[in-house]
Parts: sequence; structure tokens; C-alpha cells
Amino acid sequence: MASESLGRLAERVGAAARRADATVATAESCTGGLVADALTDAAGSSDYLRGGIVAYANEVKAALLGVEPATLAAHGAVSAQVARAMATGAVARFRTTHAVATTGIAGPGGGSEAKPVGLAYVAVAHPGGCEVERHLWTGDRRSNKEASAEAALILLAAVLER
Amino acid sequence: MASESLGRLAERVGAAARRADATVATAESCTGGLVADALTDAAGSSDYLRGGIVAYANEVKAALLGVEPATLAAHGAVSAQVARAMATGAVARFRTTHAVATTGIAGPGGGSEAKPVGLAYVAVAHPGGCEVERHLWTGDRRSNKEASAEAALILLAAVLER
Repeated sequence: MASESLGRLAERVGAAARRADATVATAESCTGGLVADALTDAAGSSDYLRGGIVAYANEVKAALLGVEPATLAAHGAVSAQVARAMATGAVARFRTTHAVATTGIAGPGGGSEAKPVGLAYVAVAHPGGCEVERHLWTGDRRSNKEASAEAALILLAAVLER
Repeated sequence: MASESLGRLAERVGAAARRADATVATAESCTGGLVADALTDAAGSSDYLRGGIVAYANEVKAALLGVEPATLAAHGAVSAQVARAMATGAVARFRTTHAVATTGIAGPGGGSEAKPVGLAYVAVAHPGGCEVERHLWTGDRRSNKEASAEAALILLAAVLER
């Protein structure tokens, strides 16, 4: 298990998804596959998890998730707008009821004054809309990845449990 | 880091990819995102890693990676043929020089006499063709995921280092 806390969250998401008869997809940038890895550590995750996309390059965000190049150009890849577009794009691409997305700057490079290392957005698209959260982590690359994955799974679980 | 050994392999893949001026994509079933997670733990992985697909449902293997439904029906999702089709599909989808794919039965459920828990295929597509390996792990779900991710990265590194 990548982290005990991620493991507990994956069990919580799985239980909530089964209760809600939901299906889930992932769209990950800064977490690089860690959200899907955590979800698939739980046996039986194939009941509700259809799959995911790790969209590292911007062209992948556009080509595979349908994020508009204009949105990427106007707001940058690390933005609430792109997190939202990734989540809603994953719902459309995987034909799920829900999708969770992450975009951020894990570090150590890539930061700026406006968008420092540790900045991350997580989004959850659901049948009623899309929620986005902004976070600013202060750890190293792995710890920022784990914090973003954790925030993404907490938001997903909360939306599924409504 | 998910595992020190995966971390070392990710560094080796990164160094070899930069030397070879290669680009890489991932197509994961049984590893559920762990290969991409390991690669993106290394800073600077965006130099060569374009992205990946976690193809858990068979329809995702078909729709997103272009695996022929006839190949899935004839050989099953856990087969050398599907591993190969996932890797070559990822090269086409992400327009990379290389792609690494995994398909297997992580357990604890899903095994049969012909395809027991722990059976896994890893494949690497490259400009000269595609290599596939068969493995049979004997651990629990997480340990089988890690073993498959490790085998996938070892094969990818070896192909990149040629």
C-alpha cells in the first residue's frame, strides 16, 4: 500500500461507489497515477473503476481528455479551469457517473511566484456538476503527490457519500 | 517512493530515455497506475513521459487503446496478445517512440486453473517491434502489482538501453 491513509480512503470510495451504484474514472496530472494505484490496491475495485488517464503532457490533456487548448493557454495547466475540464472530460471519455482529476506542481522544479511548487487543484465531476478545490502543499515531490492524491480521494468520497 | 527498487528503475528508465531521445507512454491493467506513479516520482520525468492509460475495464482497453474486441474474446484480457496490443495501442495513441503495458491477475479473486492469480504479462513496444514477457507471481495483491510494475520497468529499461 502506497500509504495507509490512501488505502483507507480507497476502501471508503469503494464502499460509497457501490452504495451509490456509481462508476469512476481518474484523470491525473501531478499525481501521475497514484490515485488510480491507490484505488486499485483495494480488491474488487474493478466493480466501479473503469480506468484512468495520466495526462502529463498538455497535448495529452487536450487529445485524450478533451481539454480545450484555449483553456490551457488562458489559465495554464495548473488551474481550477483545467482541473474541472479534466474531470468532466474523463466522465465523457470513460462514460462514468463520476471522475476525479488532479493538476499541480509537484516540484522540485516548475514553480513560479504566481504558481509555486506545491500548488494543486483537485476536481470531482458528478451527475450534478463539478467541485474543485485549491491546495498549497509544502512537502517534497513524493509528499506533494501523496497529499494531492489524498485530497482527491477525500473529495471523491465526500461527493459519493452525499 | 512506492518501493526503493521501483524508484531506482524509474531513474534508470529516465536516464536511458534521455540518452535515446525516446518518449514513453504507459498502458496499465493489473498494475493500476503504479508504473506511471513510479516513473513520475522522478523529477524531470515530464522530459520523456507523455502520459498513460489505466485500462481496467475491457471496453477501455478497446476504446482507448484500440485493442480489438476479437483479440480480447479469443485470448482473454490476460494474455500475451492483449499485452502486445495494449503497448502498440499506447504508442499510436500517445505518439511516443516506446510504450510499456501490463495485464494480469493481481488477486485475490479472478484466478482460474488456466490463468491463476499472479499470472501477468508485460510488454514493451518500440520502433523495432514489441517484446512480451510472461510471469507468475506468488504474493498478495499489492506484492503482485509491485512485481509486475518492476518487471515492466526492467523490460522497458533494457529495451531503451540497447
